[in-house]
Amino acid sequence: MPESCVLVLDADPLPRLDRLAGRARVLHADGAAALARQLPEADVLLVWDFTSDAVREAWPGAGARPGWVHTASAGVDRLLFPELLSAPTIMTNARGVFDRPIAEYVAGLVLAMAKDFHGSWKLQQERRWRHRETFKVYGSRAVVVGSGPIGRKIGSLLLALGVEVTLTGRRERTGDPEFGRVAAAGELPALLPEADWVVCAAPLTEETTGLFDADAFARMKPTAHFINIGRGGHVVEPDLAAALHAGALAGAALDVFATEPLPESSALWDAPGLIVSPHMSGDTFGWRDDLAEQFLDNFDRWAAGKPLFNVVDKQLGYVSGAGEAA
Amino acid sequence: MPESCVLVLDADPLPRLDRLAGRARVLHADGAAALARQLPEADVLLVWDFTSDAVREAWPGAGARPGWVHTASAGVDRLLFPELLSAPTIMTNARGVFDRPIAEYVAGLVLAMAKDFHGSWKLQQERRWRHRETFKVYGSRAVVVGSGPIGRKIGSLLLALGVEVTLTGRRERTGDPEFGRVAAAGELPALLPEADWVVCAAPLTEETTGLFDADAFARMKPTAHFINIGRGGHVVEPDLAAALHAGALAGAALDVFATEPLPESSALWDAPGLIVSPHMSGDTFGWRDDLAEQFLDNFDRWAAGKPLFNVVDKQLGYVSGAGEAA
Repeated sequence: MPESCVLVLDADPLPRLDRLAGRARVLHADGAAALARQLPEADVLLVWDFTSDAVREAWPGAGARPGWVHTASAGVDRLLFPELLSAPTIMTNARGVFDRPIAEYVAGLVLAMAKDFHGSWKLQQERRWRHRETFKVYGSRAVVVGSGPIGRKIGSLLLALGVEVTLTGRRERTGDPEFGRVAAAGELPALLPEADWVVCAAPLTEETTGLFDADAFARMKPTAHFINIGRGGHVVEPDLAAALHAGALAGAALDVFATEPLPESSALWDAPGLIVSPHMSGDTFGWRDDLAEQFLDNFDRWAAGKPLFNVVDKQLGYVSGAGEAA
Repeated sequence: MPESCVLVLDADPLPRLDRLAGRARVLHADGAAALARQLPEADVLLVWDFTSDAVREAWPGAGARPGWVHTASAGVDRLLFPELLSAPTIMTNARGVFDRPIAEYVAGLVLAMAKDFHGSWKLQQERRWRHRETFKVYGSRAVVVGSGPIGRKIGSLLLALGVEVTLTGRRERTGDPEFGRVAAAGELPALLPEADWVVCAAPLTEETTGLFDADAFARMKPTAHFINIGRGGHVVEPDLAAALHAGALAGAALDVFATEPLPESSALWDAPGLIVSPHMSGDTFGWRDDLAEQFLDNFDRWAAGKPLFNVVDKQLGYVSGAGEAA
């Protein structure tokens, strides 16, 4: 077959693509302008900088387009623009790489919040010894919004800690081997008042944008905690800040934000009971190599004319069960 | 049977002992002097203030002594003095009440350390967005020193997180249903260099006092973390501080200290990488009621002339397998 052209939307550090040597011509673009210039040549676009909107800005519309776009992220929200949705271009994502790291991160947040580690750290800085009582995690209740691989793995680890877990998905499903029933997204308002832990692990789509707003926070228990490792757009940030100030819920942890990096001036940095982290829940040592390997495994299929794995259903905005050939 | 006399070594808040109404005369002592005065009358001593040395100070030696001493703690180290050891007095403890809360606490510390929650929290205070990579917990290795119910439950939760767990106990055991082999205490020096997580959950006895000293810390990996939820006496505190300053290990968390409360002047408060908490790992909401109920359940047996549960082997310094009648 003729040599393919793989175009990489660069981020630092660059991916290790040695396995492409002699098999593909690799071009690099470091932003929208370079991307726009080179896209007509590319058979494959690797969106290595998944935080950028350059693809949307540079997309050639009806012009020559790559046949395959892969993003080194689980979320594909930045690629869900009309010209790409309507193009025949196949879209794949990094489904699988982040599941367990993110689940560990969320389990850690649940335990840290239950045991008030933050309170202890504050007291330690003040050299104050003040015994407090804390919550048992065993027997508490979690609602995990999102029943893809990340939501499921979060659910699994919470189950292992003795938490009662309800997952929500696009549609109700019964007979799930691990969770029994997966609730429909529409049941969320009824589930929120019972939850000690509300975890957002959904893809960002039209349906889930702004899902966590004043109404949702008002339904939570004053002792509940909210955790978002999905996308900033899932949360109406001023509503969360107001709910925390009002004591509508006990605390929250955000790893993702509407604007990243979170501006120094943001009021979220010191909202009461809010834990801020810099979009890192899935990024364990070696994650970039894992992402590059995953792309290269899929490239092997592409080069061999086999069906790709992790194919995103562009209408749904994520990989549905049937999208996974592997 | 004649009404028993139950003497309580008080701590705030007092235990709820309503179930004793009409069945026992309840006396209270708020320190060594009152205890010494009242001990000769007591059939049963409830050591509610388990942080006090008053029992040792007030013990009547060869005089009239209670037939049963119960301590509202898992550790019995403060009761292991010669006059009580040689007395026919039965000793019981709070084995069971703290297992799962402490295991949750330790699992939380492991995840918090792996994910550098402490670093994120510091950066949040400075309103700084700085992405870092963190450790996977899955596939890491833990050594848990202590194979009693607390050590075992810690091991169980770490197993559930995908950690490879080795427990150490007084003697090697094979064929353990959950852990396969339990290593002998003497193997610890050989196990330390392989461990990512070293957790002390041992009873404080002559053999385990000062177990974690300069030599032990020198054997650990520079990336390892140490957690002590046992007793302060397990750790040579200046050795730990020196090891942390030297980078011999990456971090530690102490919930227990040689002197409690930890004095404001202690250098431990700001030792690098050290997380200090005020002896609270097992104390979930309702713990005092759980402790009182456990004593009362044992009192029912005492009153009925049945064998007590959680009987401490006074030579070993903890409840051995055979000590549990329930």
